[in-house]
Amino acid sequence: MKPTVVWTKIDEAPYLATFSLLPIVEGFTKDAGVNIELRDISLAGRIIATMKDFLPEELRINDELAYLGELVKKPEANIIKLPNISASVPQLVAAIKELQSQGYPLPDYPEEPKNAEEEKIKMLYAKCIGSNVNPVLREGNSDRRLAEPVKEYAKNHPHKMRTPKENSKSHVAHMDSNDFYQNEQSFISPKDQTLKIVFEDKEGNKKLLKEVKVEKDEIFSASFLNRKTLRDFYAKTIEDTKEKDILFSLHVKATMMKVSDPVMFGDAIRVYYKELFDKFGKELEEIGFNPNNGLSDLEAKLNRLPENKQEAIRETLKEIYAKNPRLYMVDSDKGITNLHRPNDVIIDASIPAVIKNGLQGWGPEGEVEDCTITVPDRTYARMYKEIVEDIKKNGQFDPTKIGTVQNVGLMAKKAEEYGSHDKTFFPPKDGYIYVEDENGEKVICHELDAGDIWRAYSVKDIAVRDWVKLAANRSKESGYPVVFWLDSNRAHDANLIKRVVEELPKYDIDNIEFHVMAPEKAMRYTLRRFRKGLGTISATGNVLRDYLTDLFPIIEVGTSARTLSIVPLLAGGGLYETGAGGSAPKHVEQFLKENHLRWDSLGEFLALAESLKLAKKQGASEKIEIIADALNRAVARYLDEDRTPKRKVGELDNRGSHFYLAKFWAEELANCGDSELEAKFRPVAKELKENEEKILAEIREAEGKPADIGGYYHPNEELVSKYMRPSETFNKIIDALR
Amino acid sequence: MKPTVVWTKIDEAPYLATFSLLPIVEGFTKDAGVNIELRDISLAGRIIATMKDFLPEELRINDELAYLGELVKKPEANIIKLPNISASVPQLVAAIKELQSQGYPLPDYPEEPKNAEEEKIKMLYAKCIGSNVNPVLREGNSDRRLAEPVKEYAKNHPHKMRTPKENSKSHVAHMDSNDFYQNEQSFISPKDQTLKIVFEDKEGNKKLLKEVKVEKDEIFSASFLNRKTLRDFYAKTIEDTKEKDILFSLHVKATMMKVSDPVMFGDAIRVYYKELFDKFGKELEEIGFNPNNGLSDLEAKLNRLPENKQEAIRETLKEIYAKNPRLYMVDSDKGITNLHRPNDVIIDASIPAVIKNGLQGWGPEGEVEDCTITVPDRTYARMYKEIVEDIKKNGQFDPTKIGTVQNVGLMAKKAEEYGSHDKTFFPPKDGYIYVEDENGEKVICHELDAGDIWRAYSVKDIAVRDWVKLAANRSKESGYPVVFWLDSNRAHDANLIKRVVEELPKYDIDNIEFHVMAPEKAMRYTLRRFRKGLGTISATGNVLRDYLTDLFPIIEVGTSARTLSIVPLLAGGGLYETGAGGSAPKHVEQFLKENHLRWDSLGEFLALAESLKLAKKQGASEKIEIIADALNRAVARYLDEDRTPKRKVGELDNRGSHFYLAKFWAEELANCGDSELEAKFRPVAKELKENEEKILAEIREAEGKPADIGGYYHPNEELVSKYMRPSETFNKIIDALR
Repeated sequence: MKPTVVWTKIDEAPYLATFSLLPIVEGFTKDAGVNIELRDISLAGRIIATMKDFLPEELRINDELAYLGELVKKPEANIIKLPNISASVPQLVAAIKELQSQGYPLPDYPEEPKNAEEEKIKMLYAKCIGSNVNPVLREGNSDRRLAEPVKEYAKNHPHKMRTPKENSKSHVAHMDSNDFYQNEQSFISPKDQTLKIVFEDKEGNKKLLKEVKVEKDEIFSASFLNRKTLRDFYAKTIEDTKEKDILFSLHVKATMMKVSDPVMFGDAIRVYYKELFDKFGKELEEIGFNPNNGLSDLEAKLNRLPENKQEAIRETLKEIYAKNPRLYMVDSDKGITNLHRPNDVIIDASIPAVIKNGLQGWGPEGEVEDCTITVPDRTYARMYKEIVEDIKKNGQFDPTKIGTVQNVGLMAKKAEEYGSHDKTFFPPKDGYIYVEDENGEKVICHELDAGDIWRAYSVKDIAVRDWVKLAANRSKESGYPVVFWLDSNRAHDANLIKRVVEELPKYDIDNIEFHVMAPEKAMRYTLRRFRKGLGTISATGNVLRDYLTDLFPIIEVGTSARTLSIVPLLAGGGLYETGAGGSAPKHVEQFLKENHLRWDSLGEFLALAESLKLAKKQGASEKIEIIADALNRAVARYLDEDRTPKRKVGELDNRGSHFYLAKFWAEELANCGDSELEAKFRPVAKELKENEEKILAEIREAEGKPADIGGYYHPNEELVSKYMRPSETFNKIIDALR
Repeated sequence: MKPTVVWTKIDEAPYLATFSLLPIVEGFTKDAGVNIELRDISLAGRIIATMKDFLPEELRINDELAYLGELVKKPEANIIKLPNISASVPQLVAAIKELQSQGYPLPDYPEEPKNAEEEKIKMLYAKCIGSNVNPVLREGNSDRRLAEPVKEYAKNHPHKMRTPKENSKSHVAHMDSNDFYQNEQSFISPKDQTLKIVFEDKEGNKKLLKEVKVEKDEIFSASFLNRKTLRDFYAKTIEDTKEKDILFSLHVKATMMKVSDPVMFGDAIRVYYKELFDKFGKELEEIGFNPNNGLSDLEAKLNRLPENKQEAIRETLKEIYAKNPRLYMVDSDKGITNLHRPNDVIIDASIPAVIKNGLQGWGPEGEVEDCTITVPDRTYARMYKEIVEDIKKNGQFDPTKIGTVQNVGLMAKKAEEYGSHDKTFFPPKDGYIYVEDENGEKVICHELDAGDIWRAYSVKDIAVRDWVKLAANRSKESGYPVVFWLDSNRAHDANLIKRVVEELPKYDIDNIEFHVMAPEKAMRYTLRRFRKGLGTISATGNVLRDYLTDLFPIIEVGTSARTLSIVPLLAGGGLYETGAGGSAPKHVEQFLKENHLRWDSLGEFLALAESLKLAKKQGASEKIEIIADALNRAVARYLDEDRTPKRKVGELDNRGSHFYLAKFWAEELANCGDSELEAKFRPVAKELKENEEKILAEIREAEGKPADIGGYYHPNEELVSKYMRPSETFNKIIDALR
C-alpha cells in the first residue's frame, strides 16, 4: 500500500494558504508512490463532529481528530499538522453563531447551564475549547531544530539584535528558598496503580483531593512553593528594582500552567499594589476583584463602586506608581502593563524578546530601559540568569557567527509540569498534602502553609526511554554533542538521570559525545559552543523544551515560527508541526478586506520535506527523497531571493510566494540527476519561468478588493479555492501535473 | 605458588600487638596453603631504608615500602596494612635520635639547611614525614563498611546518642554564593598532555604557576572561593549566632586540604577578632602573627611585644569575647577554643561528634550547648545541613534500629580535592588564573580578586571506571541500592555522571537498584532508608568518602575505628586497612609504664578474615575460607562476650583479648564441618579452655611493672616478643600449631 501523508485542514491564514499550496504539493509528488490526504481538524470541523447528535444526517461529518488520534498510535502515521485555533469561549461562540447562520441547527453555548441538558451541551462544547488538538496528536517526544536553509538565510540576512547598554543593570531575580525547586519529591511507581492525593490538616482531618492512575515505572513527582516566601521575595525584588531605577518585569506562563501561575502572578499584584489592599481591602473584595486576573480585572469592576471610592482608588494607584519602580509595559501606548493581564507576558516568548532588545524592555513612557527579569522559581530561572549574565559579559549574540542549538524534548503523554494543572492544589489551612500508594504508604509528603501552591506531575516510562533514544539518534545523525539538562539536585531529575544511565548505553555511546548537566551549567556549556559557531543538542524536559525552542531560534533566526518541529511518534510514525507563530487572525482580516494574504508557508515547506523523507522509509518510491531534497534546495533559494510574502496589498503575497516555490522546485527537479524526474519537470520549469510575469500579474490584479468567502470559521470552500487560485495560467500548469 | 598475605610491621601500639597476634594467625592458617609475611614500613624502618647511603652494609635493610608500592600493582597483592605513624618533624627528630643512640650513624635532621649537603639530607628525610605510606599503597578505590559482627554488637550494646534539645537552635551555616561550589569548571583531557596553570594580571602580565601532567580522559577541574564573600559570610554568621545566643563553631579540614583550608580558617580569625586587627594591625604584623595558624600563634608570639601592649591586646581580646558569640571549645578545661589551632577541629570527625552529642558542643565554661555549625563552602555543607535538619525533625538516631550505610569511594591516584594542595594558588593581585592545554587553548579560566583561593584537582579515568565497577559489584553482593552522590550542578560531577552513564550498564544493572543524586538529596534518600533499618551504599567522590566513612560508622557503632576498610586494588589484589583510630601513642606510654596494652586488635581480626577470603581466590586451599568464616564467628563472640581489652592494669589487656580470640576461633573450627580442621582444632580448643585461668593469670602476673623494650620507634624485637607473649602455657599451645 502506498504511504499516506496526512495534511491537516485547520483555520484562518494557514487554512486559506492550503488551498493554494496543496495542489502544488499534489502535483509535484504524484507518481512517487505517496498519497496526500486532507483531514479536517478545524474548529468548525471539530464542532460539527462533536455535536453530531444535534445535526441531520446530511450535515454530519466524521470525527477526524479521533481518527488521527488513533492513527498516531500506528507506525504508518505521517501527518503534517498546521496551526489550528486553540479556541477561547468567545471564539467558540462566534463559530457556533456562524455555523447556525449557515443552517447548522446547533444549540447556543450555555455559559451558565440552567439544567442537565444544558450542562451536557456545555460539556460537549468544552471538548472544542483550548488546546485540545495537541494532546491528542502529540503521541511522542519532540525534535525541534532550524532547517539548514533557514539557518543559512539568517547568517546571510541577520536580524537585528540590540547591543546591551554598557554596565547593563538588567538581571534575573529569583527566590532563594522554599520554591518548587527546593521542595520537590519524586517517586517511581513499581506497578500500575491508583495514587491518592490527600490533604490532612493539623487536627488529622483528611480530604481526598484526587485519585491519579499511574503506570508501572512512571516517575511521579510533586513540589510546592511557599506563598509567604514568594511575597517576601517580590517585596525585596521590587525594592531592589526601585533602588536600581530600572523596570520591574515578571515572567510566568499562566497560559500553560493555568492553575499555579496565575496565583504567582496574583501575588505580584498583591505585593506591588500592597497599599491598595491595605486601604481598600473590603471594597475590592465586595466588587469581586481577583488579583490573579491582573489589574485589568480591577479596571473592569471598578465602576461597581461609588464615584468617590473610585476616585480614591485611582489616587492610591497613582501614589503606588510614584513610589514603586516603573513597570515593564506590554503596550505603553495603551498603558497596558506587565501586571495588567496574566497571559500577556509569557516567559518563553517574553524573555527572548528582552534579550533580542539588548536586555531591555519598554517603560510606561515608551522609553527603552534595563529591567529586573523576575522569574520566581529557581528551577528554570537560573538558566535564564546564566544567559543574561553571559550577554552582559560577552556581549550580544551575532547571528552571522553563532552556532545552533537543537532540542530533543520530553513531551509525550503530557510529560512533567505541563501535565500538572489538574493536579495543582492550594491547602485551605496549614497541614499536609501527601500522595499515598495502594498499600497506604505515603510516597510523597509535604508540610504546607494555608494557600501554598502544591502541584504534582509525572512522566511515563515509555516516554522517557523514547526520549533518550531520540537524543542519541539525533546526536549521531547530526554529529553534535547532546547535553541532558538534568539537575541531580531535583528529585525528579535524579530519577530521570537514572533512566538515562540505563537507556543511553544502548545507543552506541562510544560514538556520541554526551553530558548530563544541571540547566545553568548546561546553558554555560552550550553558550560557549554557541559563541564559537558550533552546534549542540539540548535534551530537556517538557518545560525547558518549550522555553529553549523559543529562546534559541529567536536568537538565531529572529523568530521561532521558522523552526522545524517534529514529533517522532512513539509507535514509529511522524508528526510534523508547523506555524509556531499561530494561525494569524490579522492575516485573515487583511485578506477579507483586500484579498492579500501575507501568511508565509515556509513552515509547511520544511515540514513537507521531512514528511516526504519519512514516506520513503514507509515504502514510497526512491524518487520521493529526490523530490524532498529538491524542495529543500528550492526553499533555500526562496529565502535567499526573498520570495516570502510581503505585508502590503499589491506586493508579493502568499499565492505569489507559492508560485516561486513551485518555480524553484521545478527548476531543481529539472536538474536533479534522475532522468525521469528531469524529463517530467524540465518543461514545467520552462513554462513557469516563461509565464512568471503573467502569473504574478494575474495574482496582483485580483488584489485590492474584499474577498467574500462566505464565512470566517467555516467558509465556502469553492469560494476559498477561487480566491486562493487567481491565476489561470499557474493553475493550468499545476493541474496538468496532478 | 602459595598466595602470600603481607602483614605490615608498623609503629606503636598495633606494632606491639602484632608480636602477640601474628603467631596465632600463623598457627591457625598453617596447612591452608597461604604464606604470612611480615614487611617493615615503620617510621624507623623507612628512615633506615631511605638513609641507606649513610649506613654501613650490615645496618642496611630493604626498602619495603618501595617493594609494596610495586606489589600493589600486581594481581597477587594481598596486604593487611596496620596504622603507621604519619610523622611530624618532632617525631622524625625523636626517631633519628633514638636510632643514633642505637648505633645508627645517621645525620641530624637539618631544619634550616646551611649547604647543599644538608639540603639533600633534608630532602631525603622529607620522604619519611607526613602521610607518605597511604599514597603509595592506595592503588585503588575504597570499600568501607561495618562488618556484620560489629554491627550486631552495636545493636545489642548500643552506644549513647544524646537526644537533641527540643527546638534545637543548632544548624549548619554555609555561604550562598561565590564559593567553590559555584565557581567550578571542569575539563576532560582528550590525550596525555601537560597543562599549564597560569596567572595573568589585568595588565596582561603572565606568570606560570605550575605545569601538570594529565592522562587521556582524566577529568581536570578547578574552582575558587572569593575571600571577601567568605568574610562577609563569617560576619553575618557570627552576628546571627550571637543573636541566637548559641556557640559558634567552624569545621574545615586543614590537615588534608593543607593549603586552602588554613586560609579559610584564618579568615574566621580575621573576622571574629576584627577589632584586634583594627587596633593592633601593625604590632601583630611585626611579631609575625599568622592568623592561619590560629590564635595559639598569637599566644606564642605575644611576648615579643612590650608588656603594656600585651596587656592592651589581652584587654581587647576580652572585649571581643564579651561582644561576640561564645566559641565552641576543643578543651574547655584548658581554654582551647575552636579557633586556637586550625587542626584541632577536623570536619569529618567533629560534626559526627556534634551529632552524637545531641547537636551540641562544649562552651567556654564547659557548658553543653547548641551551636552554629559553620561549613563555608556549599559543596558538602548542604549534606551536613540535611542530616542536622533531619535529626531536628525526626529525632536522634537509635543504634538498635537504624540500618547501615556502606561506602564505595573514589580514592585511587589522589583523586579530586584531596589531591589539590600542590595545585592551590592565591592570586597576588586581581586577575585571571587559567589552565591552558598543549594547543594553547584556555580550557579553564577564572577571574579572581587578589587573595582568592583557587585550586585544581583531577581524577584519572581508570580510577573512575574502577569505582563504578566497584559500586555495581558491591550493590550486587549486598543487595543494597547504590546511590551515586553526584551533583549535576557541579561541572566536575557532571563529567563523572557522564562516566557513570558509560560504565554502569556494563554491570548487569537490571539487577541493581541505583540512583544518581546530588549530595543533599542523596542524604535525604539514604536517611529515609537508614531510619527504616535498611542498608544503602553511598558511591562518592574522595571528600565525601572521607566524611561519610566517619559519619555513619560513628552514628551506627559509636566509632569509625571499627570500620572494615578495603582498598580493592586496580590491578586485582586487595589492601586491607585497619585502625582508623591511629597508632595510639597513649597506649604505648601506658605499656612502657605498667606493661598493660589496651590496644584492641578488632580491626586486624576483621581485615584478616577478608584477606583470607581473597587468598582463597588467589589459589589457597578451600579450607582457608572455612578458617575465615570461623574467625568471623569468633569475632562475633569476642564482641558479644565483651573480651575487648580494658583500660586498667590488671584487667584484660590486648594479650588476654588475643587469648580469647584464639579460644573462640579454635572452638568454631572444632565444629566447622570440615573433618580435617575439626580433628586439628578440637584438641586445641580443649587445651585453651582447660588452661583459661592459668593463661590469664600468667598474663596478669606480668603486669604492673615497667616494660623495657629498648626503644620507642625501634625497640629490641626479642624484648618486645618476650613482653608480648608472657604466658608460657599459651605460647606452647600456639607454637605447636605453627
